[in-house]
Amino acid sequence: MKNTFGNNLTVTLFGESHGNAVGAVLDGLAPGIAVDEEFIRFQLSLRRPVGDISTARQEPDHFVIQSGVFEGRTTGTPLCIVIPNENTRSQDYGDMRGKARPGHADYTAYAKYHGFEDPRGGGHFSGRITAALVAAGAIVLSALKGKGIAVGTHIARLAGLADRDFADWNADIATLAKKPFAVLDAKASMQMVSAITAAKKEGDSVGGVLETAVTGLPAGVGEPWFDTVEGLLAHALFSIPAVKGVEFGTGFDIADLRGSQANDPFRMEQGRVVTTTNHNGGVNGGITNGMPLLFRCAVKPTPTIFKAQDTVDFMQKQNAALQARGRHDPCIVHRARVVVDSVTAFTLYDLLAGRFGTDWLA
Amino acid sequence: MKNTFGNNLTVTLFGESHGNAVGAVLDGLAPGIAVDEEFIRFQLSLRRPVGDISTARQEPDHFVIQSGVFEGRTTGTPLCIVIPNENTRSQDYGDMRGKARPGHADYTAYAKYHGFEDPRGGGHFSGRITAALVAAGAIVLSALKGKGIAVGTHIARLAGLADRDFADWNADIATLAKKPFAVLDAKASMQMVSAITAAKKEGDSVGGVLETAVTGLPAGVGEPWFDTVEGLLAHALFSIPAVKGVEFGTGFDIADLRGSQANDPFRMEQGRVVTTTNHNGGVNGGITNGMPLLFRCAVKPTPTIFKAQDTVDFMQKQNAALQARGRHDPCIVHRARVVVDSVTAFTLYDLLAGRFGTDWLA
Amino acid sequence: MKNTFGNNLTVTLFGESHGNAVGAVLDGLAPGIAVDEEFIRFQLSLRRPVGDISTARQEPDHFVIQSGVFEGRTTGTPLCIVIPNENTRSQDYGDMRGKARPGHADYTAYAKYHGFEDPRGGGHFSGRITAALVAAGAIVLSALKGKGIAVGTHIARLAGLADRDFADWNADIATLAKKPFAVLDAKASMQMVSAITAAKKEGDSVGGVLETAVTGLPAGVGEPWFDTVEGLLAHALFSIPAVKGVEFGTGFDIADLRGSQANDPFRMEQGRVVTTTNHNGGVNGGITNGMPLLFRCAVKPTPTIFKAQDTVDFMQKQNAALQARGRHDPCIVHRARVVVDSVTAFTLYDLLAGRFGTDWLA
Amino acid sequence: MKNTFGNNLTVTLFGESHGNAVGAVLDGLAPGIAVDEEFIRFQLSLRRPVGDISTARQEPDHFVIQSGVFEGRTTGTPLCIVIPNENTRSQDYGDMRGKARPGHADYTAYAKYHGFEDPRGGGHFSGRITAALVAAGAIVLSALKGKGIAVGTHIARLAGLADRDFADWNADIATLAKKPFAVLDAKASMQMVSAITAAKKEGDSVGGVLETAVTGLPAGVGEPWFDTVEGLLAHALFSIPAVKGVEFGTGFDIADLRGSQANDPFRMEQGRVVTTTNHNGGVNGGITNGMPLLFRCAVKPTPTIFKAQDTVDFMQKQNAALQARGRHDPCIVHRARVVVDSVTAFTLYDLLAGRFGTDWLA
Repeated sequence: MKNTFGNNLTVTLFGESHGNAVGAVLDGLAPGIAVDEEFIRFQLSLRRPVGDISTARQEPDHFVIQSGVFEGRTTGTPLCIVIPNENTRSQDYGDMRGKARPGHADYTAYAKYHGFEDPRGGGHFSGRITAALVAAGAIVLSALKGKGIAVGTHIARLAGLADRDFADWNADIATLAKKPFAVLDAKASMQMVSAITAAKKEGDSVGGVLETAVTGLPAGVGEPWFDTVEGLLAHALFSIPAVKGVEFGTGFDIADLRGSQANDPFRMEQGRVVTTTNHNGGVNGGITNGMPLLFRCAVKPTPTIFKAQDTVDFMQKQNAALQARGRHDPCIVHRARVVVDSVTAFTLYDLLAGRFGTDWLA
Repeated sequence: MKNTFGNNLTVTLFGESHGNAVGAVLDGLAPGIAVDEEFIRFQLSLRRPVGDISTARQEPDHFVIQSGVFEGRTTGTPLCIVIPNENTRSQDYGDMRGKARPGHADYTAYAKYHGFEDPRGGGHFSGRITAALVAAGAIVLSALKGKGIAVGTHIARLAGLADRDFADWNADIATLAKKPFAVLDAKASMQMVSAITAAKKEGDSVGGVLETAVTGLPAGVGEPWFDTVEGLLAHALFSIPAVKGVEFGTGFDIADLRGSQANDPFRMEQGRVVTTTNHNGGVNGGITNGMPLLFRCAVKPTPTIFKAQDTVDFMQKQNAALQARGRHDPCIVHRARVVVDSVTAFTLYDLLAGRFGTDWLA
Repeated sequence: MKNTFGNNLTVTLFGESHGNAVGAVLDGLAPGIAVDEEFIRFQLSLRRPVGDISTARQEPDHFVIQSGVFEGRTTGTPLCIVIPNENTRSQDYGDMRGKARPGHADYTAYAKYHGFEDPRGGGHFSGRITAALVAAGAIVLSALKGKGIAVGTHIARLAGLADRDFADWNADIATLAKKPFAVLDAKASMQMVSAITAAKKEGDSVGGVLETAVTGLPAGVGEPWFDTVEGLLAHALFSIPAVKGVEFGTGFDIADLRGSQANDPFRMEQGRVVTTTNHNGGVNGGITNGMPLLFRCAVKPTPTIFKAQDTVDFMQKQNAALQARGRHDPCIVHRARVVVDSVTAFTLYDLLAGRFGTDWLA
Repeated sequence: MKNTFGNNLTVTLFGESHGNAVGAVLDGLAPGIAVDEEFIRFQLSLRRPVGDISTARQEPDHFVIQSGVFEGRTTGTPLCIVIPNENTRSQDYGDMRGKARPGHADYTAYAKYHGFEDPRGGGHFSGRITAALVAAGAIVLSALKGKGIAVGTHIARLAGLADRDFADWNADIATLAKKPFAVLDAKASMQMVSAITAAKKEGDSVGGVLETAVTGLPAGVGEPWFDTVEGLLAHALFSIPAVKGVEFGTGFDIADLRGSQANDPFRMEQGRVVTTTNHNGGVNGGITNGMPLLFRCAVKPTPTIFKAQDTVDFMQKQNAALQARGRHDPCIVHRARVVVDSVTAFTLYDLLAGRFGTDWLA
C-alpha cells in the first residue's frame, strides 16, 4: 500500500519538497462533517517555521480542496487537498547531487529509485510533505472533536530539558491546542527555545520527545493481533520523518517494573470501569480500555546541519566532504507535534469507522 | 485487515488458548522454499516454557502442515500450519469469569466482543497464539537465511539487569540461534534467571527489553511514507502481547543527542557504502541503508501474578478482589524473543517480495 | 492479497485436492452469530457429487471448526474451519505429470510455480477447495438471514436448456434452499439431468449459467468507484473455477436496449422507493437501490473429459496426446451454485460490515 | 479501500463533475518510466465528446502533474495528476435536486450519503471522473508498451450492430490506437454513428459491447483464488459507469458448449506453448497462459435521456415526472473504450509488479 494508510479511512500522500505541490487524499470520511477552513489554516500555522528557531523557508500554505466538500461539509467521497509549493530555491541544492547527507534519505532514495528520485530539497522525503498531513488532519481532528474525542501533544523533552507531565488531561489538551510552542511548563518552554537557539548558532541541531494524550475514546476499539491500537498508531507515527521510537503508557520504563507495579488496577467509578493508574496507556491486549490513550515519540535531531561532515558521493562511489547550505531547521520537534496529532487522528478515526460504521462520525 | 498482516506475504492468525488449536496461514511464499520440520520444532522449543522460570503448562506443539507444502518444499500456494492444544485445564479459570485481570485483555475483550469472547486462558489474546507465529516464522527465517539474511534477538535487559551489546553481528546472531535463554553475557544470564526465580517466589513477575539485529539486508528496501521499515516492523511487533515500546537504533536516547552526534557518517568500504556509526539502526527515511537493522522492544512484566489485586467484575459492574490461580509465567521475555524473530521475518520478507518479486526469495 | 478476499470481513482460503485438508479462515465476523453445524453439513451436501451426474469421488466433508466459536456462537475472533481430505486416489494422476489438461490450470500453474505446485488432482486449483468456501459461507449466510437478507441461486441454463425466471423472489429463494438440483421448473430439471447423463456417456461435459437473487438488502451499500457492488461480487465470483462471465440485471442484453427501455423508473410504494423494472439488477452507480440484487455467472463445461485431446507435455516441451483417467464431473454447474451463494454472502457481509460497523450483523 | 484499487500499483480517484477538478494518484510506479505528455493529451482526446454524437460539454482537459515526475520520468513516488473542471453549468441541474434520474445514481447516492453528496452533474458518480483514469492510464499504457504489452479495445457491438472480430491481434490493436471511433470495420462504423444520431434525435440513447485484447503478457501471472486475472479485471471494469457485464474469451456463449469444444488444445509452436483456440481468453485457473487476453464489457445505454420519465422525488418522498435538461451523451460506448484500456493497464501492471518486483516495468 506504500503511501496510503488505513482501512476504512485511507490517507494517500503525494508531493515533493520543490515540486508543484504536496497534498493528500482522504477517503472514507463520513458525509456531513463540517470543514472549517480557518481551523485548517490554524493547524498549518502550527507546523510552519517559527522565527529564529526554524528554517527561513516560509510557505504560505494556500491549500485548495479539490474535491469531497460541498457547501462546507464533506460529501463522503474522496477529499483531495493540495498545497502548492510557492517558496522553493532549488539552486541551493544543485551541486550536492550525489553527496549523501548523513542521517537523511539521500542515499537510500538512490538505492531504491536508482537516481530517478527528485533530489531537490529531499524530494518526497522532505518534512514539507507533512503539511498535507496537517491540512487533512485538521478535518479529521474536527470530526473526532465532534464526538468528544480530544487529541493533544506536548514537547515532553527537548535537548535534555523536560516539560511537566499531563495533569488535567482535557484542560492540558485545550491549552496545547492554542500554543505554537507546545510546552505545558512556561519555564521549560523558555529553556527549550534557548537550547534550540544555542544549537543553531553552532550550526547544529537538537531532538526531543513528543508525548500525546487522547481522551474520550470508548472502550473496545482495536484488534487483538496486528491491528492493535499500538501497532496501527506506531505504523503511522514512524512515517513522520525523524521519529525513531514509539512507546505507550510507561513505555520502556515498564520493563524494569514488577507485574504488581505495572498492572493498572480496575475500579468502578460512577458506573464506569476505570483504572487507578495508566501504565498501559489506555490499551490492553491491543484494545482501548476507556482510559486516556498515552504515548511518546522519540524525534531525532534534524539531520541537516551546517557543520562539515564525512560522507560519500554515491554517484561517484567515493568518499566526500559535505558542507550543507540552504535553509534548514535546527529543531523540528515543535513543528512535528501537530503532525503527530494529525496522524493520530487518522488512525483513530479509521479504527472507529471500522468498529461503528461509516456514519458514526458524521 | 485485523488478524492478517502483510501485502505480498500475508500472515493470518487464528486460535484460542484453550480451544482446539492455534494456527496460521502464510500466503505469498515463493515456490520451492525448503521446509525444514526439524527447524520448526527447534524454534517452537525456544518458545516453550523452560523449567522453573516459566508456566507449568507444557504443550508438545505437534504441528501439522495442512497445505502449501509438497515433497518438502513450498508450493507457492497458501501454507496453513495448525498446532493442536493438548494440555488445557479450563476449570482453572471458570469462576474468574467477569473478574478482569489488571494489565490483561479480559475487560477490553468484553467491551469489544460483548461477552461472546472465549474467556478460557485468555482466549484469542493468549500468548499461546504466538506458537503459530513461531512455527510459521521458522519457514520464513529459513527462506531469508537462504538469501544471506540473518535475524537474531537477545535479552538486552531483564528486571533491570543488562546484557552486553551486539559486538560481532553475525557471530552473535549465530550464538543466539542456539541458546534457549538468549543472553550474550553468561554472568548476566545467570543473574537474570535468578531474578525471575525471585519474582516467582513472591508471586510476582518481571519484564525486560529485547534487542534484535538483522544482517544481510540490501539497501533500498522500504517506503518513504507509512510503509517505512520502522512503521511496518512496529505494526507487527506491537501485536506481540506485552510489547509496549519499539525503538530503532539509538531509539529514545537519540532525542538527547545533537545532529552532529546522531548523524551516521557515510564512507566507502570495499566499494560498498557503509556508515561508521549506526544511530539510525540501518534505516534512513524509512528505507534500509545496508547496515544492520537494529531495534528494541520493551516487554512489560507478565500481567497475571499471584498477588491479590484490586479489580472489577465487569459483568456485575462492581469492584472485586482478584486472586489468580492457574499456570502462569513469572516472565515471558525469554520466550518472546523467538516470536520477535518470527514477526521480523514476516515483515522483511514482505518488503523484499514487494521489491524484488515473488520468486526472488525461492 | 492473493488468497484472501474482503476488507471488513476477510476470507482466506487454503488447501489442495489431495493434500491433508482444505479450509478457510473468516476474520471480521460479528461476535454472537449462532453457528449451526447442521446447516453447514447441509450446505456441504449441496456441493457434494450427486449420483450419476457427478464424480465418483465422495468426500464425507467432516469439517472441524478450529477457532472462533465458543458455546455455539462466533467469538468475533478468526474462525478457522478445516475439512480433511479423506478419499484421495493420487495414483490416478501420477503419469500425467507434465501433460497439460486443456482448459485446466496445469500449464499456468507450472508457469507460475515452476513445478513446485502440488499436481495431484489439480492441487490448489481443484474445485475441491470450494468445500471450504461452502462451509464458511454457511455461517455467513445464516448471519445474513438473521438480518432478513436471503440469497438464492438457480441453474438458469444448462446445456442450452432454460429454467424459468425468478417470479416470487422470496418464495423461489426458499424453494431453492432445499433443492439439491437447483432448478425452479420441474420439467427443465429432468431435461437438464438427462443432458448431463448424455454428455457423460460420451466422455464429454456440459456447462451452464447460474442466476442469483438477493433480497432484503438496504439501499445505500457499495462504493462509487472500484468497490462497487458489481465489482466486488465479480472479483469474488470469478475465482470460482469455470466462471467465465458475470453480468448484472439484464446484463449483456442491455447493450441492445435504448435508454428509455433500460432505465428502471422509480416509484413510491408504501413509503419506500422502488423501481418498476429491474434491468440494473438492484444496483445504480455501484450502490444498492433496495431492489433485489440479480446477477448471472457463465460456467464453462468441466475441462476434464474422457475424450482424447491434443496437448503438450510442458516439462518435455513437446506435443503430446492426453487421455484423462480418474474421477471427474461431467458437469459442475449444479454443484457450483452453493459456492456462488457462499461467495455472494462473503461479499455482501463485507460491504454491510463496512457500512454499518462490526456489530450490526450479530 | 473504496476509491483506491490495486496492491502493488494503486490508483486513487477523486473529484466531482462540477467541482474544482478531477484527478488520480498512482502509487507504485517503477522509477524511470518516461512520461509522454503528448500521449496523455491524445488519450484524453479519445475520451472527449465527438461532434454530434456526444454531449455539448467540451472540457479542454488541461491536466497538471502535481508530483511523482522529475525531468520527464517517474520518480517512483506517488504521481498525482489533476484535471481542472473548466466548463461547468451547474444551473442546469438546480431544480432537479431530489428527482432521481432512472438508471442513474442520484437516489443511491442519497441513500448512502444522506444528501451531503454533491448533486451537480452527478457529482462523484459522473463519467467526468473517468478523465482522471484516462490521464493516469496513459502513463501506465506507455510503461506496458515498453515491455511489449499492447492493449486495444474496439466497439464490438453498438445499438445491435456488430463490428468484425479481432483478426491480426497486434495490427488491429495498432489500428485502434489511432481511431477516435474504435470500430475495425469501416461500414459498421458508419452505421453505428447513424444509430447514435438517430437515437439522439429521439432524445434517447444507445448502448453496446466493448471488446478488449491484450498481447505480450507472459504466462504465469495472476492468482488461483480471488486475485485471478479475471476477478481483478472485472473488479476494476465494473467501476466504469454503465458497465453491467464482463466476460472472458467465449464468455456466456461457453455455457452452451461441450468440454470437447470449449477446451483450448495446447501445442508447441517455435518452442513456445500456445493454444490453437482461445475460448478461455488467455486465462486458465485465474492465471495467464501466454495467449492474448480477450474480454468484453456490456455498456448500457446512457441513463440520462430527454424523454419524459416516471420517477420519485426522494427528498419529498413522492412520485414525480422527470424531463431531463442539460448536456448529455446519446451514447458513451465510444468514449468509454479508452477508459477500459486504462483500467486494464492498471490491473495488469499491478499483477506484473507483484510478480516481478517494483523495477521490472521501468
